[in-house]
Amino acid sequence: MSLIVKKFGGSSVANAERVFNVANIIIEDYKKGNNVIVVVSAQGDTTDDLIAKAKEINPDGVSKREMDMLLSAGEQISISLLAMAIEKLGYPVVSLLGWQAGFVTDSKYSMARIKRINPERLLAEIEKKHIVIVAGFQGLNRYDDVTTLGRGGSDTSAVAIAASVKADVCQIYTDVDGVYTADPRLVKKAKKMSEITYDEMLELATLGAQILNNRSVEMAKKYNVELEVLSSLQNKPGTIVKEVVNVEKMLIKGIASDNNVSRVSIIGLEDTPGIAFKVFNQLGKRNVNIDIILQSIGRDKTKDITFTVQKDQRKETVEAIEAMKQSLKFQDVVFDDSVSKVSIVGAGMETHPGVASKMFEALFDAGVNIQMISTSEIKISVLIDAAQSERAVNAIHDKFVD
Amino acid sequence: MSLIVKKFGGSSVANAERVFNVANIIIEDYKKGNNVIVVVSAQGDTTDDLIAKAKEINPDGVSKREMDMLLSAGEQISISLLAMAIEKLGYPVVSLLGWQAGFVTDSKYSMARIKRINPERLLAEIEKKHIVIVAGFQGLNRYDDVTTLGRGGSDTSAVAIAASVKADVCQIYTDVDGVYTADPRLVKKAKKMSEITYDEMLELATLGAQILNNRSVEMAKKYNVELEVLSSLQNKPGTIVKEVVNVEKMLIKGIASDNNVSRVSIIGLEDTPGIAFKVFNQLGKRNVNIDIILQSIGRDKTKDITFTVQKDQRKETVEAIEAMKQSLKFQDVVFDDSVSKVSIVGAGMETHPGVASKMFEALFDAGVNIQMISTSEIKISVLIDAAQSERAVNAIHDKFVD
Repeated sequence: MSLIVKKFGGSSVANAERVFNVANIIIEDYKKGNNVIVVVSAQGDTTDDLIAKAKEINPDGVSKREMDMLLSAGEQISISLLAMAIEKLGYPVVSLLGWQAGFVTDSKYSMARIKRINPERLLAEIEKKHIVIVAGFQGLNRYDDVTTLGRGGSDTSAVAIAASVKADVCQIYTDVDGVYTADPRLVKKAKKMSEITYDEMLELATLGAQILNNRSVEMAKKYNVELEVLSSLQNKPGTIVKEVVNVEKMLIKGIASDNNVSRVSIIGLEDTPGIAFKVFNQLGKRNVNIDIILQSIGRDKTKDITFTVQKDQRKETVEAIEAMKQSLKFQDVVFDDSVSKVSIVGAGMETHPGVASKMFEALFDAGVNIQMISTSEIKISVLIDAAQSERAVNAIHDKFVD
Repeated sequence: MSLIVKKFGGSSVANAERVFNVANIIIEDYKKGNNVIVVVSAQGDTTDDLIAKAKEINPDGVSKREMDMLLSAGEQISISLLAMAIEKLGYPVVSLLGWQAGFVTDSKYSMARIKRINPERLLAEIEKKHIVIVAGFQGLNRYDDVTTLGRGGSDTSAVAIAASVKADVCQIYTDVDGVYTADPRLVKKAKKMSEITYDEMLELATLGAQILNNRSVEMAKKYNVELEVLSSLQNKPGTIVKEVVNVEKMLIKGIASDNNVSRVSIIGLEDTPGIAFKVFNQLGKRNVNIDIILQSIGRDKTKDITFTVQKDQRKETVEAIEAMKQSLKFQDVVFDDSVSKVSIVGAGMETHPGVASKMFEALFDAGVNIQMISTSEIKISVLIDAAQSERAVNAIHDKFVD
């Protein structure tokens, strides 16, 4: 008998038929004698519909407190409908809102962080052998006001519950059946992995393999919660994410490409101390996330700074830099939206020299020009022309995965 | 400076334009220096949409606990949207769910009763000069589970808050601009009353003048909360409902007709002691509401019992009686769905004999046949053919209201 936490996203409960599909997955585990806690997101487009209603009232942006009040109604609808389906199938069930399940968060409306979970109610319902359906994505702050965790927050809700009740596994159901060595839509020979470490998963998540929310993997690592990524539409094992995995021959675990990236260059910056700090401090204040940074010596005692940002933050970034023209003294700021970041991830590369050169060789053979390079202990990223992204990923995959 | 509680129904906040209309009504009073607490129902058809979703999952009827969880999302959406509109117009506002506003109810899901309100949060928000928007229709029971008060519950929510915070007045906004001597759609000469007593309003509410929910008037009477019924679309005074009103010349306060009624007759019942008790005890167990009862001596030591029920309970009522055929011993059970209950109400009739005969005279003159009669201290009801309902109401109105 195990204690299992399952998380289903909005598309998994988008309509009555899918709600019953999810209900059956839950019941299958419950019938085996397991205790089951389920975290669900809002149905399909509910969140977007609610956002549209808010925009109609105030297109200039409403207060985040009221937005959280509005949006949290979405999961309230999905949890009760899923509970009704399980009831209809004849099993004991109870739905709980975030605050009923004990979620205490800080007060950053729309992007709150979970401070703790008071699991008394959850455990009491489990004790009664109830299947428990919990609203993901939401909690309550110290003022007794409803907060939301931001997009992808339901993954984090599930992991937090799993940590809090010491679940045996936290299963994240998605529309893919596991974690692949590369995006199967881009790379035909991509392989599903049976196991992967938290760190590898984190790097893959950061790199745009949009399977698991980053914060949820971080939390799983911190509290040592075993994750499983699997499909709600196919009844087969997925990919287990845990601290240490069986040693496999594969040197790299995944190849990811991310096209949601822009390159920004500040040309001819005066070469004075602290100039880079000035730039990135200003951008940090505007919540711009900087990724790869490259600084080069220019001509005439000037230098160039090049870095990447998310594509949707590029406009703001360039404007912020132009606004600093007086204080910074530079010649020009240029950008390129047609770039792609291609990365390889694998805990094995720490102990295997030559991985980088193998990757560069693959790209050279494929005629792909590398614009920027960034490395970490278990990751190598290169920035290339977006048009060559798919070719690059396949070339690297062929080189590393047999 | 007054403390005002306002209640708006679902149609008043059905779309963005109407939400702003309501926001402006609220702000108008707030700008005068008043403290304003607002109770709102779910938007337009939201409740019906949510019920449809539940029916799709389980047409046989879902558990009331989960239904309450589902339905209470409706007001959560409307309160946040109204708060956003007030924010947009530049005034300080906060929305509160039923439980945040301190509503504690019993555990009868879908028809919970308010046990008390803990007004700390409400008063704290008022202290901060916030306009407070409260979700009507919902509360929390002792298990920390969400309950709903049943249809029309938002009126009760508003009156309960008004009683709890000792508001100066509780204004119930509807689609009519006050209480009329008769339904203005049926009787052209119907007049709006400036004042009416709780008791008169109660009788009118019970009789199908669907302006105020009955429980809310009972509660207003109990806690002496002054009510005002007024229109959200017209900016003018409505009708005040209170304990004692200025003596007016009018003998009767209102004429109401109710077509949602059926007549059921049990013919040839064996005339044994307790037979009527048996019948109504069984129907009571099925929550059938019996209204007018008429018992007559039949032939051959049998008797007939005739009574009225709500039209939507007629089928169940007849089936329940037929199921008792063995134990009850009667000849037949018949029913008529084409009947209407027409009533006159007025505290003045207690001290004025001859009101009943004046009413019967009006009906006789109009050629309306009376099937059944029922009276209370301040009310006389007659059951007539539904086809003659409008003519009857007009004839009575002409007789009593000049």
